[in-house]
Amino acid sequence: MPADLIKGMSPLQKFRFQYKPRVPSNLKDIALITAVPDVTSLEPDVDSTQKTVLKEVFKKTYGKPVIHLSAKGSGSKQDRKPIRASVVLSGGQAPGGHDVIAGIFDALRSVSPSSELIGFLGGPSGILNDQKKTLSEDIINAYRNTGGFDILGSGRTKIEKPEDIARCQEILEKNKIDALIIIGGDDSNTNAAMLAEHLNSRGSPVLVIGVPKTIDGDLKNKFVDISFGFDTASKVYSELIGNIAKDSLSAKKYYHFIRLMGRAASHITLEAALQTHPNVALISEELAHRKVTIRELVEDIGKIVIKRADLGKNFGVILLPEGLIEFLPEVKTLLQELNHVLAEHHEYVNTLRGFTEQSEYINQKLSRDSSYTFSGLPIDIQRQLLMDRDPHGNVQVSQIETEKLIIEMLETYLGEQKAEGRYKGKFAYQRHFLGYEGRCAAPTNFDTDYSYSLGRTAVALILAKANGYMTVVKNLAKNRDQWEALGVPLTGMMNLESRHGKQKPVIKKSLVSLDGSPFLLFAHEREKWALEDDFRFPGAIQYFGPPEVSDLPPISVTLETTEDR
Amino acid sequence: MPADLIKGMSPLQKFRFQYKPRVPSNLKDIALITAVPDVTSLEPDVDSTQKTVLKEVFKKTYGKPVIHLSAKGSGSKQDRKPIRASVVLSGGQAPGGHDVIAGIFDALRSVSPSSELIGFLGGPSGILNDQKKTLSEDIINAYRNTGGFDILGSGRTKIEKPEDIARCQEILEKNKIDALIIIGGDDSNTNAAMLAEHLNSRGSPVLVIGVPKTIDGDLKNKFVDISFGFDTASKVYSELIGNIAKDSLSAKKYYHFIRLMGRAASHITLEAALQTHPNVALISEELAHRKVTIRELVEDIGKIVIKRADLGKNFGVILLPEGLIEFLPEVKTLLQELNHVLAEHHEYVNTLRGFTEQSEYINQKLSRDSSYTFSGLPIDIQRQLLMDRDPHGNVQVSQIETEKLIIEMLETYLGEQKAEGRYKGKFAYQRHFLGYEGRCAAPTNFDTDYSYSLGRTAVALILAKANGYMTVVKNLAKNRDQWEALGVPLTGMMNLESRHGKQKPVIKKSLVSLDGSPFLLFAHEREKWALEDDFRFPGAIQYFGPPEVSDLPPISVTLETTEDR
Repeated sequence: MPADLIKGMSPLQKFRFQYKPRVPSNLKDIALITAVPDVTSLEPDVDSTQKTVLKEVFKKTYGKPVIHLSAKGSGSKQDRKPIRASVVLSGGQAPGGHDVIAGIFDALRSVSPSSELIGFLGGPSGILNDQKKTLSEDIINAYRNTGGFDILGSGRTKIEKPEDIARCQEILEKNKIDALIIIGGDDSNTNAAMLAEHLNSRGSPVLVIGVPKTIDGDLKNKFVDISFGFDTASKVYSELIGNIAKDSLSAKKYYHFIRLMGRAASHITLEAALQTHPNVALISEELAHRKVTIRELVEDIGKIVIKRADLGKNFGVILLPEGLIEFLPEVKTLLQELNHVLAEHHEYVNTLRGFTEQSEYINQKLSRDSSYTFSGLPIDIQRQLLMDRDPHGNVQVSQIETEKLIIEMLETYLGEQKAEGRYKGKFAYQRHFLGYEGRCAAPTNFDTDYSYSLGRTAVALILAKANGYMTVVKNLAKNRDQWEALGVPLTGMMNLESRHGKQKPVIKKSLVSLDGSPFLLFAHEREKWALEDDFRFPGAIQYFGPPEVSDLPPISVTLETTEDR
Repeated sequence: MPADLIKGMSPLQKFRFQYKPRVPSNLKDIALITAVPDVTSLEPDVDSTQKTVLKEVFKKTYGKPVIHLSAKGSGSKQDRKPIRASVVLSGGQAPGGHDVIAGIFDALRSVSPSSELIGFLGGPSGILNDQKKTLSEDIINAYRNTGGFDILGSGRTKIEKPEDIARCQEILEKNKIDALIIIGGDDSNTNAAMLAEHLNSRGSPVLVIGVPKTIDGDLKNKFVDISFGFDTASKVYSELIGNIAKDSLSAKKYYHFIRLMGRAASHITLEAALQTHPNVALISEELAHRKVTIRELVEDIGKIVIKRADLGKNFGVILLPEGLIEFLPEVKTLLQELNHVLAEHHEYVNTLRGFTEQSEYINQKLSRDSSYTFSGLPIDIQRQLLMDRDPHGNVQVSQIETEKLIIEMLETYLGEQKAEGRYKGKFAYQRHFLGYEGRCAAPTNFDTDYSYSLGRTAVALILAKANGYMTVVKNLAKNRDQWEALGVPLTGMMNLESRHGKQKPVIKKSLVSLDGSPFLLFAHEREKWALEDDFRFPGAIQYFGPPEVSDLPPISVTLETTEDR
């Protein structure tokens, strides 16, 4: 009996398998769906010059219409031929990936019991290497409503070079696949669009459909309310931030610096701030906009610490996004210059063996501004920038623990202020990084329902012969039966961005909008939060119980989708 | 409307306030409880020499009987005089503290609506400084079923010096307090016993009752199944470990080294291991028992990493308790010698300004064994041991990030093995420390029910005029109505231990028993877990839904209380 206690799945896992995801009413019966394309084609939200370039690159797939899915069709199951679809997971894990696949599988089966779903293994490289498995009912059932991407594995290989795209076509056609569903972020969906265009222009019958995934929340636009996975990850982080805030408030001893996953945008930090009301939350996009220097940033935080000390509070919670440092204009310039100098003179730099010698030499080569920025950084960060370079000799920004940098500079600042009699508090801290704790959590009811619906939408789009589309489920802040599934052409979400000095068509990454209601609400409240300890404690994700607790969408999604836009 | 979305409490908080804790049937109606003392007195589980000493120290409070609480009494509410009780939170936060206080409050009110509960602020120092607040219904209601100790704050002041104990008596009597309830760990309960003895021997009417608190789970014996807070904290950690394991299994890229709170014992790590089935979990008590050296330990882990690499697995999850390093006999000896040398020669050592000079000098002074151990440590750990000393000049073991030490030595070992062709894998890692994330979580249903019941038990013991007792609720692995509340004399849990060279009566700290069924089950399974990735994913704490999910006690408690003992 003792061993039985821990054998097999946890109790929650067992019950989660029984959960039936709820889907929008227009997705309930795949056999009844009729595709209703808009009469006008979807134009991307860019100027005419960019449109011309996009039209040129996407000759076949530019200017397609949004496809609405009407549940009022009269199709019967007998009409449908079996579909042989394939699916691949691309990039970082996000809760809900398994449900997307389950949604695809169930919908395929309801089209025809002889439909098949093939999963490529280990990410896009699985397509190139033709590594795959056929997903059976048993396999699918073992992964329903669970976190992780372990059903197939994932990977970061990008299919963008012409030879890789051609190889893709070869493998897909060799395997007699009708459609490839790519579950990925903005880059993967950009590549999905390229592949769709390629296949179409070569007369291949294979369709490509993209599904919006990423915990970072940076794949979001007027069609996509949010990517799947964001809700679960930010709820896990918010749970922990709330717990840490409660600890801080009880022990009254530490400032907790909590760095949150999310390099390219600060959506997670903003959502977590709205959920938990920390004393300070740094939003990279705002700091970039205000052109804040790192010294100013540290002073801003320092002033709050001093004010709190005057109120007898030597504790608090400070949130910051992982990618912060890359958003500070002066640091960005410094990094560019450093990389340039190190590339230009790397052979000479390599003859300089000590940090002191290297730093003396490099400082001469930097601009006056960057030299000033560099010498203002704590020594061990300077050391890390020069010494820990990647195999290409580049500075490894991602290795810099931003909260450590800020803490060290803050200690210096507070030391000064104390010496000058302006700070009377005690400064002790704890550091946290929250990332892997949330990326593979079991999806919330919201993410489960949403991801499963996205999977079903993919199949509806295959039936509509849609190529180069993204699955979209809208109105996510409303009740499930008011959710609406549709297909949006990927080219309609694109713009041109400079990559490695060249203009490239890419799906626009969504940064935190400083005019959006999530940021405005945060900006309105933060002064109070800084001093008053108005912490909010979201607690653990609930899968059962009152829907007001277990079914809520992210706060930022509710705010964004209820504002006029 | 936008601001309303985030105002006030989170949805889960609101619903948690409505939760009514379930209590053992003998606690349901305080007015009906009759105290039934055992006919024999409780003897501590020590030899006769120790008994003699304990009898001498605890002249008045030694040899008292266990008090059972029978619900079959005939007392009526009219008989009861109002009670003026006081409560203090001592030491580290543990989920359930607020419920203990709510349980006391509600029980006091059911004895008489004129009863009062006074809370001392900021831990035991609040008694010495007479800092207190009267806890009203409104205050209590604002904290029911919430985590943290913020209702009163806590502190680590120890009341053990005779003058402090005398001061305590003075304050309690001045405030006309009938009883002091101390919510704390083993040390605080030891001090509660001392205070109870003092008060009794001075003829004071004030009663002292202890409540067993600590997330570490090291306050546990044949009466106490577990201290409150352990369940919630280990469930939060297990949730996160499961999520990280899922990530590891999906990304197949990193070894995750997860250090868990709990310095004095490895109960949390063991419980988390049973919950999640990591590839490796280090149990300090076992390593101490086997007299494992740090090199052997690193080799043991390294061998598993190599075997996994042979299976194509370059990822995994490794748990270790915060206090690990202090359990390794050779490190323990090294630390003692270092502290001795540094104390003896601290003036000379302070004249040596660089690490190299200090380490050369110190090495000469160490024994051959300790010198060998010291020089085997990574340089930055050596540096930390010598340079970062506390204000008394002592080495700060608690500052050592044990997982970092192990990782660095492991990298060296794997490098050797690779060079010699015995290891073909790639070793990349992520480090985590889980502590503050769980200490103040909202208590599980188990901890809520248990803590609230402990609070009610305290009042039942006050009515029984029990002095120097611990509140106990037994049979925790059974259904709530089979739980049984009783009072156990603190002196019955004591033994003599050497503290600063003197024999001191203390409540026995419970270490992980290598003969206990939790460890035996773990030891039986771990070889499989090491290679097979049999991860278990407990998921987030559930407060609603099927009781099989939301009401479970810790696995180790179920194992321990269902074994013969």
